[in-house]
Order: sequence, then structure tokens, then C-alpha cells
Amino acid sequence: MDNKLVKEITSMDEDFTKWYTDIVKKADLIDYSAVKGCMIFRPYGFAIWENIKNILDAEFKKLGHENVCMPLLIPEGLLQKEKDHVEGFAPEVAWVTVGGGEKLQERLCIRPTSEVLFCEHYKNIIHSYRDLPKLYNQWCNIVRWEKTTRPFLRNLEFLWQEGHTMHETEEDARAETLRMLNVYNDFYRDKLAIPAVVGRKTEKEKFAGAIETYTVEPMMHNGFALQGGTSHYFGDGFAKAFGITFTDRENKLRYPHQTSWGVSTRMIGAIIMTHGDNSGLVLPPAIAPIQVVIIPIAFHKEGVLEKANELKAELEKTFRVKLDDSENSPGWKFSEYEMKGVPLRIEIGPRDIAENKCVAVRRDNGEKTVLSLDGLTESVLKLLDEIKANMYEKAKKNLAEKTSVARSFDEFLDIAANKGGFIKAMWCGDAECEAKIKEVTGGVKSRCIPFEEEHLSDKCVCCGKEAKHMVVWGRQY
Amino acid sequence: MDNKLVKEITSMDEDFTKWYTDIVKKADLIDYSAVKGCMIFRPYGFAIWENIKNILDAEFKKLGHENVCMPLLIPEGLLQKEKDHVEGFAPEVAWVTVGGGEKLQERLCIRPTSEVLFCEHYKNIIHSYRDLPKLYNQWCNIVRWEKTTRPFLRNLEFLWQEGHTMHETEEDARAETLRMLNVYNDFYRDKLAIPAVVGRKTEKEKFAGAIETYTVEPMMHNGFALQGGTSHYFGDGFAKAFGITFTDRENKLRYPHQTSWGVSTRMIGAIIMTHGDNSGLVLPPAIAPIQVVIIPIAFHKEGVLEKANELKAELEKTFRVKLDDSENSPGWKFSEYEMKGVPLRIEIGPRDIAENKCVAVRRDNGEKTVLSLDGLTESVLKLLDEIKANMYEKAKKNLAEKTSVARSFDEFLDIAANKGGFIKAMWCGDAECEAKIKEVTGGVKSRCIPFEEEHLSDKCVCCGKEAKHMVVWGRQY
Repeated sequence: MDNKLVKEITSMDEDFTKWYTDIVKKADLIDYSAVKGCMIFRPYGFAIWENIKNILDAEFKKLGHENVCMPLLIPEGLLQKEKDHVEGFAPEVAWVTVGGGEKLQERLCIRPTSEVLFCEHYKNIIHSYRDLPKLYNQWCNIVRWEKTTRPFLRNLEFLWQEGHTMHETEEDARAETLRMLNVYNDFYRDKLAIPAVVGRKTEKEKFAGAIETYTVEPMMHNGFALQGGTSHYFGDGFAKAFGITFTDRENKLRYPHQTSWGVSTRMIGAIIMTHGDNSGLVLPPAIAPIQVVIIPIAFHKEGVLEKANELKAELEKTFRVKLDDSENSPGWKFSEYEMKGVPLRIEIGPRDIAENKCVAVRRDNGEKTVLSLDGLTESVLKLLDEIKANMYEKAKKNLAEKTSVARSFDEFLDIAANKGGFIKAMWCGDAECEAKIKEVTGGVKSRCIPFEEEHLSDKCVCCGKEAKHMVVWGRQY
Repeated sequence: MDNKLVKEITSMDEDFTKWYTDIVKKADLIDYSAVKGCMIFRPYGFAIWENIKNILDAEFKKLGHENVCMPLLIPEGLLQKEKDHVEGFAPEVAWVTVGGGEKLQERLCIRPTSEVLFCEHYKNIIHSYRDLPKLYNQWCNIVRWEKTTRPFLRNLEFLWQEGHTMHETEEDARAETLRMLNVYNDFYRDKLAIPAVVGRKTEKEKFAGAIETYTVEPMMHNGFALQGGTSHYFGDGFAKAFGITFTDRENKLRYPHQTSWGVSTRMIGAIIMTHGDNSGLVLPPAIAPIQVVIIPIAFHKEGVLEKANELKAELEKTFRVKLDDSENSPGWKFSEYEMKGVPLRIEIGPRDIAENKCVAVRRDNGEKTVLSLDGLTESVLKLLDEIKANMYEKAKKNLAEKTSVARSFDEFLDIAANKGGFIKAMWCGDAECEAKIKEVTGGVKSRCIPFEEEHLSDKCVCCGKEAKHMVVWGRQY
């Protein structure tokens, strides 16, 4: 019955890109669709996103945010209302030009992001300081016409949430921008077990139309960065472009201050490339569709399946549990759930039952533990916590090992060419130096000016002029 | 502080259409967007959809369905694979012709429904009877280029769920089709308190590409029908068109049998038009974003707000509760939450507190009850149950009163012209009679051949030939 043998995947040292695409396919996360760059979320892949969404959505609501749903389509004239914004997005949108059999008078683009839709609506519903703040969010699909696509990391269509908020004062809006950045960073650390560098984007790397863009940048196994989540402060630029005003507490007409912030299905790419190994996915327990898989051993023997079902009934009061009682061999099942990254496997056979115990095998490090069947829920809880903690420590070690300091341009180029990873280096604040670094290295860009800046030297690593900031640099997905 | 006075809405007897659009705007359900026919779900409107979605999603999963996510875009060639299907949908799709600044070689339509996408994927993943059944569902947005649009009822873009399943045998697929129809009918009855006629669509009214279409058809206040949910049996037509085959238990190659089923945000229109009244929305407790609103009376007096907060803390363990402690007058608040259809209002003032009681006012019939503060949760539970039961009975009475029997064509025309509502009449089975009835009455169509057919006479009400079925006829949204 081993007809669905788990095939070996490419090792990540041999070909990291192929290792990645092997996993997304063989762990049944996605299938490719007829349109290049658009993918199908299979049940296992979508369940990861549902778990992410449920946790974040509850967190947003706890902080007072409300969900809305904006239209998919934006008229060309509306997209053009904020100048920087349209310049940033117009080149990568999809245009609907025919509807209901007729050529449209005005083209409609499929939303590449929804600032202009929120602004148009806010204009209708914000009149007084009593209407503020407005703390809105939506979960939706987005289309950006990417030339090079890769599942989860860069898709023509992807899923995300986008928060869009309006505030009475700059101070309130800036506080919201950082509050939501912290929500993302906490989620990466506490739920996904992913450490990240957090900070502010340079002028060049800011979101189109934003005054400040903040970012959470985790590092992947291979030393590449992934822009994991961003939070933007817009000031009142959009409000002015859209004529959104409110009467303040002194009865004066003013423009509100705006933020937006988002994370996307790219998070799943971050999970794969931070935690995965050569046996497949390794999922953090908080978002794993199956947290515990029970594999009965010699299950045709009397009592085994009954006991396995008993364990399942007990454990599923607390965890997401699967009992695999299919005819596939235990060996096949072990490989299958390793590929799928299930955090904990529990094996139970006749001998275990006789001794009132079972064997628990951790996905993160392969460690086997013999557990008493008494107090099993507590033991599993403890193991899952340990798994999460260990996953985080491993990722943190990778981040530390692959982060270097460059004090000269030669050193910078040497690290970029031979070691990779993140490079901490001083910067004068000039976009020309950023451009030069990107060009000379073939793609190393400023990730961010981290909140925790260090004073490495007085001079820009590129031009030697006076340094303004320490920047973390790196290649990105 | 009554600056946001609740304005009167048009009475439904005066202008039913205006009454409806007044409610969707004044109960803060939607706002219009820049694209005609696309609307914005405001937080209160979207929360209703979230509640609907959560209940149905849990039900689908309980029955073994898994959520997936298919792409938004369908290449023209793929849409054309099943002949009847493309004929039904091609006239009403939106075409993307430009992406990333370049004219596309093949046009892509925004999904008007996703049968072809599911089939293309099923072809890749179904090989053996062991892979069946496949019970997939997705929650997504859909675009159909409607000429006449109305919020919730007929939008250019709407939200829905679409289940798409594949089965070994015709019997299994037919059973699934009816099982899901029943899920919808149960949901309408038990959660939305909406009675409906259920049955099979005629050939003419079937879904494009289906062998059978079943439907849940509730009746609105004004006697119009609304197609509330449909479930389709496809046979193996799509499977043949897409070359989806599997090896059966006898090791023979066969085509699987397919279903699809869906409900949409149109449900919210059904709720408004079944339960609403001249004071606004009336929401069934199961999906109301606020189930209980607490209004403190004379709340600047000592102890009132403290007590109101105590009640809130107790009730929100079981219900979705709002305490309105704004400076607006109690009168304004009463009107506001009546407009928003909150099922139960609880008033609490100094005298109530002294007597350890509060006043509960039902939205469905305006009845006031004095409740002891002891055992309040139990009393509220009971009241909400009574509200639901009464809403259902009222709607059932409307359905019965506005359902007539026509035994002759003259009688049919008289009812259609003067009374409206549903008309039960015999039918020969000929599409020409359906067309004639629609033309002569200016829009009365067959709703369905109900599961509970009555034998009214031997002859077709239209042509006088031998009758095959009793049909329920009516005008529709």
C-alpha cells in the first residue's frame, strides 16, 4: 500500500531554490494554476493561512480594529489621485478594459493595495474628531504583475490583510504605526518562532506615498532577508489629496493623519525558509494544521486502534490532532508527517499499551521521549512549548551567525560575495550610496535602519563621508 | 449631543425599494464605491457576513469539507472548456487585457464562479478511488457584470462560498448535492429564522453546465422571491471536458461525478427584506453583531454606570454585547439600535438598580419585560430564543398569506397582477410555457419544482396540456 511513497527532496545545501519548491509541492501546500504566478492553496497550505489569520484577526480586534471589505476594482482616475502612490503602483497593475461584453469608458485596475479606496470612503464618513480614530482592516486578495514569481514569496495574486487607520493627530498616527509593527514582530517571535531585525526603511525603500515605512525583516536559512511585514505612517498627504477633513476639538477644520500596515501569505514562505530542513517542513505549533499526529504501531493487534482513538479523543480537547490509521506502513507515515512539518508524532503499539506509555518524537530535533499515558495533555503541552523555544533559538543562532559587521567597502564586498547574510554597516544617508552598493554587489539592499543602532564608525562604508545611521544590508526575496 | 439624529426611513408600504436602500445606508451596512455596482462593506455589515461565515464554515468542516483558495483569474481558453458553462458566463465577465504595462497574449477573466479552476486542479490530484471523495470549499470574491445592481442583491462584485466536490459514483454525488441543500435550508430556518420553498430548478433555470440545480427560495416582505442558495449536480460532464479520470475499485478507468453549491452575501439582503420593518433592520440573534445592547438611564447618577458595566461583564460571557455610555440621549439610542436591528435592548436606571431588576425590550415586537438581575443570562437566553421563534413564525405567516393557488391561466394572471407573491400552478414541463408566463406577466418565473408537490389538477395552467409537475412561480430579485 506504499503507493504514495514520500520521495526525497533536494537537499538545501545542494540547491536552496529547488529545495524550497520541492517542499511547497511535496508537503501539499500548493498546486500551480493556468495563470503563471497565480497559485492554488491546497487544504494543508490554506489551513496554515487560516491559523495565521485567526490569531492575528483576534489580536487586531482586541486592539479595537474593525474589519471591512472594500471593492476589488479601482478606476484609473481614483488610483491617480495621490502622485507618489500611483507612480509606485501603476507599472505593476492588471487592467480590466472589457466588462459585460463592452469596452469600458474608464479602465479599472485590480487593487494592488487599497489606500485610495479607503481614502475615498473615509472622505464620506469622517467629519468630526468624534469620528476618529477609524481603525479599519481587511483580509483580501491583491494582484501585482510580477515578472519573476515564486510560490508564497512573490505571486501575481496573493492574500493579505491591510490595516488602514485615521487619527486626530500625528502623534496618535505615529503611535499606531509602531503599535502595529510590534504586533507583527511579536507574532513572528511568539507564534512563528522567527526572530527578526526591526527598523525603519530608508527613503529609497519606503512604500509609495508614505512618510515612514517600518519593517520586520527575518532572515532565511540561506542568509537572504524577507520583508515580513510593514507598517506605514502617511502623515496627511492622502487626506489632502482626497479632501478628507474633520472639525477638531477647537472647532477648526483639519486633515487627519493616516497609517497602513500589512502582512501577507509570504509569511508562509518565511516559515518554510526559516525552519524547514532536508526532511521537509517544520511548522511552529501555533499555526500547524496538525499539531500532533498519532501513529498506531501494529494496529491490527487487539486494542491498539482503540487505545490510539482514546488518546486522540483526549488530546483533541486541547490540540489539533490527526490519527493516521491508514494501511500505509509506519515508515511511510513517519516520512509523510515529517515532510508536512507536524511538530509532534506520537507512536503507540502493543508493548507501549502494556506499559501505559507512548513514544513522542519531536519534529524539530528528532528527539524521542517516552511519555506516560497519565497526564499526557500536560506532557504534550510542555513538549510543544519546548519545540517552539528550540525552533526560535535555532533561528536566532542562524541570524547571529549570518550577521556580519563591515567597516570598509572592501570588507563589505567580501562579505557580500563570499559569506552573504546580513551586513551591518554605517551609511551617510545618501540614496546614491544605496544604489552603488546594490549595483556593485548585484543586489544587496538596505533592509532597514534598525531600532537598535550601533555606532560602528564615523564614516559611510561606501563613500567615506560622515555617517548618519547604521543600516542592516542584505539580499532579499 | 444628538448631532447624529436617526432620520426616519421611507415606509416599506410607500416605496419598498427606497425602504430597502434607506436601511442598508442608515443601519451603516454599506457605502457606495467609485465603481457602479461595487459596494463597501462597513464594519457593521461585514460583521454580519463574518457571523454567517463562521457558522457555515464550521458546519462544512464538520461534514468533512476542506477549504482551499483558487486564483482570481481564469484564462479565456480555460473558461471555454465546458460548452454550456462558457455560454452561460462569458457575456457577464470582466476581462483583464493589460498586465504590468503590456497587452496580454490571452485575455484573463475575473472568476464569475470557479468550476473550471477546480476541474483543472482536480485533474492533477485525482488518480484513484482512494483520492475520492474530494470535498473542497472556498470563500472568495466573484465578479459578474450586472447591468442593474442593488446592494447585496445584485452586485458587480460579491462575496460567497463555493463548494466543489468530486465523488466515485453518481449516487454519492447526488447525495452530496442534497446534503448541502439541506445545510442551507437548515441554516435559513434555524439561524436566520427564514422559511423557504425548496426544490429543483426547471431545465430553463438551471445553472450553466449542471444536470440538476436545487434551490432554497425564501420570500421577501413584498412577495418577491430571492434565490437564497443553490446546489448543483454536474454528473461527469466537466470531468469529461477536462479529462479527469480515476482508477476505480475494479481497476477500471472512470470519470468522477461532481457537485457545486454556494451561498453569497445576498443572504444579507434576504435578512433585511424578510425581517426588517419601518424602524429599520431586525436581525436574527444567531448572526447579529450586537445581540444585546445595554442602555444606562440617567447614567450620571451614582452607581448606574458601574451596574451597567457589571451587567455587560456578565452577559458578554455568553452574548455579543454593547454598552452605549455615550452622551447621546436614551431616545436617540433606542432609535439607533432599533435601526441596527439589535435583537434585545436592556435599560437600567437608578430605580431598576434599587429593585434589583432591568427592563428588556424586544426588537421583533417591541414587548417590554421586567427581568430580575439574578439569573439574567438565563432570562436573556430564553428571550433570544423566543425572538428567533417569533421572527420565524411571522415570516412563515407572510409566506403562507402571499402564496396562492392558480388553477386557470386567468386566475394566474390575476394573482400575478394584483396580489403577487408565490403562485402554485401545474406545468406541462415545456420551456415555452415558462417563457410565455414570464412574458405575459412581465417577469413571473418558475422558482422551482418543490420537493413537496401537490396535485392541483391534471392540466398545465398555461397551455392546458397534461401537467407533469406543480411549480412554484414568482417574481425574483
